[in-house]
Amino acid sequence: MVYITRKETFSAAHKLTRPDWSLEKNEEVFGKCSNPNWHGHNYQLWVTVKGEINPETGFVTNLAEISLLLKHYVLDKVDHKNLNMDVDFMKGKLSSTEVLAVEIWKQIENPIVKLGCQLHSIKIQETDKNFIEYFGS
Amino acid sequence: MVYITRKETFSAAHKLTRPDWSLEKNEEVFGKCSNPNWHGHNYQLWVTVKGEINPETGFVTNLAEISLLLKHYVLDKVDHKNLNMDVDFMKGKLSSTEVLAVEIWKQIENPIVKLGCQLHSIKIQETDKNFIEYFGS
Amino acid sequence: MVYITRKETFSAAHKLTRPDWSLEKNEEVFGKCSNPNWHGHNYQLWVTVKGEINPETGFVTNLAEISLLLKHYVLDKVDHKNLNMDVDFMKGKLSSTEVLAVEIWKQIENPIVKLGCQLHSIKIQETDKNFIEYFGS
Amino acid sequence: MVYITRKETFSAAHKLTRPDWSLEKNEEVFGKCSNPNWHGHNYQLWVTVKGEINPETGFVTNLAEISLLLKHYVLDKVDHKNLNMDVDFMKGKLSSTEVLAVEIWKQIENPIVKLGCQLHSIKIQETDKNFIEYFGS
Amino acid sequence: MVYITRKETFSAAHKLTRPDWSLEKNEEVFGKCSNPNWHGHNYQLWVTVKGEINPETGFVTNLAEISLLLKHYVLDKVDHKNLNMDVDFMKGKLSSTEVLAVEIWKQIENPIVKLGCQLHSIKIQETDKNFIEYFGS
Amino acid sequence: MVYITRKETFSAAHKLTRPDWSLEKNEEVFGKCSNPNWHGHNYQLWVTVKGEINPETGFVTNLAEISLLLKHYVLDKVDHKNLNMDVDFMKGKLSSTEVLAVEIWKQIENPIVKLGCQLHSIKIQETDKNFIEYFGS
Repeated sequence: MVYITRKETFSAAHKLTRPDWSLEKNEEVFGKCSNPNWHGHNYQLWVTVKGEINPETGFVTNLAEISLLLKHYVLDKVDHKNLNMDVDFMKGKLSSTEVLAVEIWKQIENPIVKLGCQLHSIKIQETDKNFIEYFGS
Repeated sequence: MVYITRKETFSAAHKLTRPDWSLEKNEEVFGKCSNPNWHGHNYQLWVTVKGEINPETGFVTNLAEISLLLKHYVLDKVDHKNLNMDVDFMKGKLSSTEVLAVEIWKQIENPIVKLGCQLHSIKIQETDKNFIEYFGS
Repeated sequence: MVYITRKETFSAAHKLTRPDWSLEKNEEVFGKCSNPNWHGHNYQLWVTVKGEINPETGFVTNLAEISLLLKHYVLDKVDHKNLNMDVDFMKGKLSSTEVLAVEIWKQIENPIVKLGCQLHSIKIQETDKNFIEYFGS
Repeated sequence: MVYITRKETFSAAHKLTRPDWSLEKNEEVFGKCSNPNWHGHNYQLWVTVKGEINPETGFVTNLAEISLLLKHYVLDKVDHKNLNMDVDFMKGKLSSTEVLAVEIWKQIENPIVKLGCQLHSIKIQETDKNFIEYFGS
Repeated sequence: MVYITRKETFSAAHKLTRPDWSLEKNEEVFGKCSNPNWHGHNYQLWVTVKGEINPETGFVTNLAEISLLLKHYVLDKVDHKNLNMDVDFMKGKLSSTEVLAVEIWKQIENPIVKLGCQLHSIKIQETDKNFIEYFGS
Repeated sequence: MVYITRKETFSAAHKLTRPDWSLEKNEEVFGKCSNPNWHGHNYQLWVTVKGEINPETGFVTNLAEISLLLKHYVLDKVDHKNLNMDVDFMKGKLSSTEVLAVEIWKQIENPIVKLGCQLHSIKIQETDKNFIEYFGS
């Protein structure tokens, strides 16, 4: 079993707020991430898949296919977008990095199985000082 | 003459659009940066000042003072904000990295003189692949 | 279960020596790290905690609280200090990166439980070429 | 149990091709990595070993010895070399990053046991966007 | 006057040898860079152009056009290629980083003038420890 | 004229204090950098030299010689040392990054002329957030 990781980057706006809370409550819980007029990040995304080496090619899977899959299911939807307003799979959800990792997992788990390997982890870095990892359960 | 550089980071939302242009014209010129619902970045900012070494301290200037100055004139205004909507010194301006560099220069040029040194350059990186430098003229 | 990592940095002096060994024995075993007049590093520290996502906030835990906890139990004690002479939890111990990771684990394991999550790992990088990870046992 | 990672770098030429396939088939499967006149990379290699802390030294193992071992079994053979033509342990094998990780594992697994610890993982990064990890089975 | 820098990456094979010198002389002067079977690097390339801000767009020049220009004149020719054998503008030249920087300058100086700005500098990094800058004379 | 930069790293202890000042005055001016028991850094050093390309080799100068020169005049003296106590060329001087850059310039200016090129700049980074540049006057 070998693990392959593809790193991608996207730039998006978001804010952390609950519409059922007051501005004050939102700011108390979410701090400066609750700014009503949005803020944004260069997000870094690492997707790790695992599988056996195909003896014919020396590859677990062709990274070009992983890259196309990530473009279709994730990057075209989130890059230069607003995570709260523009992204179908984030509608009605809090746009914390934790939730984003879980929702990206749901988008790509099955497509990766179709390439003949398994999704192992999603890692998302929002700033240099914080990152999140999710292993599917 | 010695040059000292302080690096800071801020996370902000923005979009590139002219209100006097149609959506189509904006997209033609500004591409995905014109997304109406905003996008955002982790901006990196390098401020370089120059001066003589003070023989009493071995410093050109105390970096703690440079850091406070940048917090007051720049970071408190742009971090976790919307560059188009929330920032006084960007009101009515296009929020390209070029314009942002020039406007930050105007904010800090005189305060840095008051610390006894000179502003040499502003460098801003919007993504890993692009940065802008401005030397004041 | 989601894993959250906070990265912090601190600058400290240290040396690797056993007072019960001669200078020669110390240099033979610890090499240039045994320089009697100390040397130092910019240490990088990654603390990973794990827990369930709180559906009310979308957070496993509030990173602002993790950050305060690390400042209180670790950074205020080690940053711009001498690991051998100034740090209460390192008194009488060898200041190798391995020992430092284990001792930081002991400092923060219980406080992190009080935030409602679990400590998963401590990673410390001493230089670009070496790092240590500890998972608690 | 503590995990220690040593990071090394090497620069090598390679190409992905099967001599039993046509140029066209090779290009279809391996893309631009099949360029007949070679291409090359600055590879980054992380070797992680694990073991108990030796209470006499505070070390799991002396990193100077790990470093010498990696120089002898890996770096002297691959750095500034052609992975397909110059490296004994890659003869007759596809020079994908996956295969390279498995073959480096075989070279160093036993020598690391002789240092009193265990090999935990090999990680190789070929470009900023891709890396491979292998845990021995 | 504002300076804009675009960073690109390419992976290429090369060797440093003079065909009019013996193997021994080549190794004496060029060291391990003269390995007859090639080696390779992930080169990093920074291209800096300068110009006035266009008040209509806030741009000195559209980075999308700079990017297309670099793809056409440089990256399509050098990425996943052999600098000595495959690149028209390096034919018959030593493939040192210095020479490569000067030859890339010649390729893109005029095309950049046609975009309405001026080429300011070429910077190339071959490994983490070395880089070259060229300002055109 | 081409500019070549070599990057080196060293780990050293230091403190900022004037023996003619009280502990209180030192702490007021130098903050936590005045900790009496020292602290330390992984310093990064960039040395830039300039010269014409030698048409016989394609090099401005052989980086292997620059590297040996830096080892002899700088790195052997400062790496894993105490800048205030162990380094001949820093004796009696304040160990600020500014002063360190000027003193390293004095050590290597003439040796670099003997290699047939000129010293252009010294850059030193003490932490990720600060660096100093010196151009010789």
